[in-house]
Amino acid sequence: MIFSSFVISDKEPIYVQICNHIKDNIEAGMLQKGSKLPSTREVSNVLKVSRNSVVTAYEILESEGIIKSVKGKGTFIDKVSRNSKDNFNVDWSSMINEYGEACTKLDILKTELPYKKGMISFKSIAPEEGLFDLEEFKRAFLNVCSMEGDKILNYGYAKGYNKLIDYLMKYMQEKGVNTEGKDILITNGFTEGFDIVLSSLTKAGDSIICEEPTHNTAIKIMKTHNLNIVGVPMDLDGINTKELDKQIKETNPKLAYIIPSYHNPTGIVMKGEKRQEVYKICEKYSVPIIEDGFNEELLYSSSHVPPLVSLSTEGNGVVYIGSFSKILFPGLRIGWIMADKNLIGALESVKRARTIHCSFIDQAILYQYMNSGAFTKYVKKVRKYYRDKYRFTLEEVKKNIPYECIMGEGGLHIFIKLKGISSRDVLAKCYEKGVLFMPGDIFYSGSGGEFTMRIGFSRVKKEEIKKGIKIIGDIVKEMS
Amino acid sequence: MIFSSFVISDKEPIYVQICNHIKDNIEAGMLQKGSKLPSTREVSNVLKVSRNSVVTAYEILESEGIIKSVKGKGTFIDKVSRNSKDNFNVDWSSMINEYGEACTKLDILKTELPYKKGMISFKSIAPEEGLFDLEEFKRAFLNVCSMEGDKILNYGYAKGYNKLIDYLMKYMQEKGVNTEGKDILITNGFTEGFDIVLSSLTKAGDSIICEEPTHNTAIKIMKTHNLNIVGVPMDLDGINTKELDKQIKETNPKLAYIIPSYHNPTGIVMKGEKRQEVYKICEKYSVPIIEDGFNEELLYSSSHVPPLVSLSTEGNGVVYIGSFSKILFPGLRIGWIMADKNLIGALESVKRARTIHCSFIDQAILYQYMNSGAFTKYVKKVRKYYRDKYRFTLEEVKKNIPYECIMGEGGLHIFIKLKGISSRDVLAKCYEKGVLFMPGDIFYSGSGGEFTMRIGFSRVKKEEIKKGIKIIGDIVKEMS
Repeated sequence: MIFSSFVISDKEPIYVQICNHIKDNIEAGMLQKGSKLPSTREVSNVLKVSRNSVVTAYEILESEGIIKSVKGKGTFIDKVSRNSKDNFNVDWSSMINEYGEACTKLDILKTELPYKKGMISFKSIAPEEGLFDLEEFKRAFLNVCSMEGDKILNYGYAKGYNKLIDYLMKYMQEKGVNTEGKDILITNGFTEGFDIVLSSLTKAGDSIICEEPTHNTAIKIMKTHNLNIVGVPMDLDGINTKELDKQIKETNPKLAYIIPSYHNPTGIVMKGEKRQEVYKICEKYSVPIIEDGFNEELLYSSSHVPPLVSLSTEGNGVVYIGSFSKILFPGLRIGWIMADKNLIGALESVKRARTIHCSFIDQAILYQYMNSGAFTKYVKKVRKYYRDKYRFTLEEVKKNIPYECIMGEGGLHIFIKLKGISSRDVLAKCYEKGVLFMPGDIFYSGSGGEFTMRIGFSRVKKEEIKKGIKIIGDIVKEMS
Repeated sequence: MIFSSFVISDKEPIYVQICNHIKDNIEAGMLQKGSKLPSTREVSNVLKVSRNSVVTAYEILESEGIIKSVKGKGTFIDKVSRNSKDNFNVDWSSMINEYGEACTKLDILKTELPYKKGMISFKSIAPEEGLFDLEEFKRAFLNVCSMEGDKILNYGYAKGYNKLIDYLMKYMQEKGVNTEGKDILITNGFTEGFDIVLSSLTKAGDSIICEEPTHNTAIKIMKTHNLNIVGVPMDLDGINTKELDKQIKETNPKLAYIIPSYHNPTGIVMKGEKRQEVYKICEKYSVPIIEDGFNEELLYSSSHVPPLVSLSTEGNGVVYIGSFSKILFPGLRIGWIMADKNLIGALESVKRARTIHCSFIDQAILYQYMNSGAFTKYVKKVRKYYRDKYRFTLEEVKKNIPYECIMGEGGLHIFIKLKGISSRDVLAKCYEKGVLFMPGDIFYSGSGGEFTMRIGFSRVKKEEIKKGIKIIGDIVKEMS
């Protein structure tokens, strides 16, 4: 409190010294309008002076309008007038550099139409939180506390929580990955993983191959790194491999970014043979693959399709970025990069230089949760839930929206191409009627996707899906 | 499981098809050495074939050495030989760019002598975890769960958890800050805060002012951004203001990075008048200040010294980066940037492009913990604990180590300048005797600090402090 180090002298009356001390503190910026003062009793105790002197000081200040007593609440600073007005003003907007500007310009939360209360929004593909088993989560937390105690709240390691890393190594083995010579770095979700990889491997102007369309956040990150994005068109079964071969030959890319499962935004699952083909083309030209494990866990058909990284029997050409954020606890922000040991070593230092490490207690909880078997049960549950919802939504779409084609076969979203009607025009009209969706052009690095839209249904109730799709359909029909 | 989508045909005997299917899965990388096969009973159920066919298939594979039955455990893949060896190998080390290399080169966890079990280590200034009140933490967690439910585990906002932001706004007001026109962004500790600020405001070659010596992580981040670090020497009461003025005039820096409280590594607390002076100089030349709120909470004397950001009555020239990591739960990785509203708006987009947001449950727990009053109680406790330990360590240092000067007046560390003896030479000898400390040169952006060392005592037991300091002292005396 402001009087703790204040020493009363004998040069002036005590009440004057108290008044001046408070005024000095206001001047120095230590007391603001609304700051609470200690009670007169407290001050008299701390300063070892009579309470009367303090009361007098407070009365004078109150008469000057500087402080104000509120009955039953205490005494507060009421008027702040400082003589030393400073004019240290910086024009921050002129200081933001190209990178900061790019991040702002590409921030779809700032540029796209915002959700308003009561709207039916198909924008999001975040998981339905009602599916989370909070009780299991609590149990995992309490287990962590009793097993790790305070330690888990102290600093950890940049690479991540060891038990979680070991668990994920086995988890990747079960996906068919030969983990020899590989290692894992825990990251703040896919976003940090991808950003760290690009930050460490690319320079402005490098070319990078990706599917066109592709994950909007990936486009944003590639753009903020000033990469030359080479989008390879997708057929109904995934990336066009002939075009992939041609583009790689022509642009000599540094990396290829691929989403094989429930591709965002199309929902296409690349079949095993195509995966082999893509892998072989990248191998032929020695273009390392950044594989986005997005929604791999969600595959509705229970037959596992091996990720690209598992096609490497002894090679190290694939960097796999995994995350459970689209099905489990995205708020925790835990993802991982699996890659060549030496590469992970370097990325670990980059991670340390940027965020030191991810929350250790969150990593420990996630580990406990998964290791207890709760995750396996949960995945079964959500697969069924989303599969049903997918089928329901698909049917509504087919019934109501006139389309040129619907891509994909599942996931948390449906990607629709309209017959020559601009989805942004549709969106503008839908917005007036309280319906939101993602215009497809944000998934194109260039100017494509004008007629496409993504319908995310994961968090929308069935009756709202029905209602919302009907509204979109009516507007499309009207415009046809 | 691998048989779920397998369809038996009638072209070959069933056992042959099962054998081939397993071999195909090995070839495709779906089964690795050690992978467990489903039991013969399970396979016969799934495929709806006789169990005998499955048993025959397994027997054949076992006779070929491909699988192995372990009694009571199951059947496992034992030999994996794939014909399609791939040689997709990437020389990742040649791909790491300048930034990735700088992060690795400047990673003191990789370059400095490592801690080995049983050593007395004065390297760390992490908090003593024994002080954390785990019970209060648990209570905060359970409160969050019951109040926020599953929602808190879903995606949140890049800026941070609203209640925590509001709390920190008030918290900063109590430090004397005029929060009008200011806003807060929650970051993954100081490290992410500083990295985001530099990423958004600077470009390679820009000059940045800082104290010399200064926080090693800050040096690392400034170097990875290729900034021209202008270190201003420190007197015993903090940065030399004459030199500060001169250096700003000469180098026209973009920013100034300052640690006013328990400065790392010197432990100096800049007095109120000096803060005014530093502020005025930066204002004069319009050089925005990045204030590192490091350990401000820990100030042993209970009298508050206003942070630089509070000296701004109406200006916006100071960016304050706060963190409780040196006293409270560093494993959570929660810090904050308080700055001009518009700047925070831009930094929010940068944060979103990099890590989306910090763990929402961690933010909510921290808020609950602080709002419950537990934090205030905790700070009182740790202040006393560390003050006692500081005094104890200081006395041991004074008794045992011949020094030229000891800087600072508290914190979790003591900074010592030896009389013309290289602290790295001392360290080499101490290491042999099982004692570690931080050589001071890592806190100098240039080549200074040869004779300095930092003794971090926060997590060292008193008897070990005594023993360790004695060992250091004896070695220094020997070398004198």
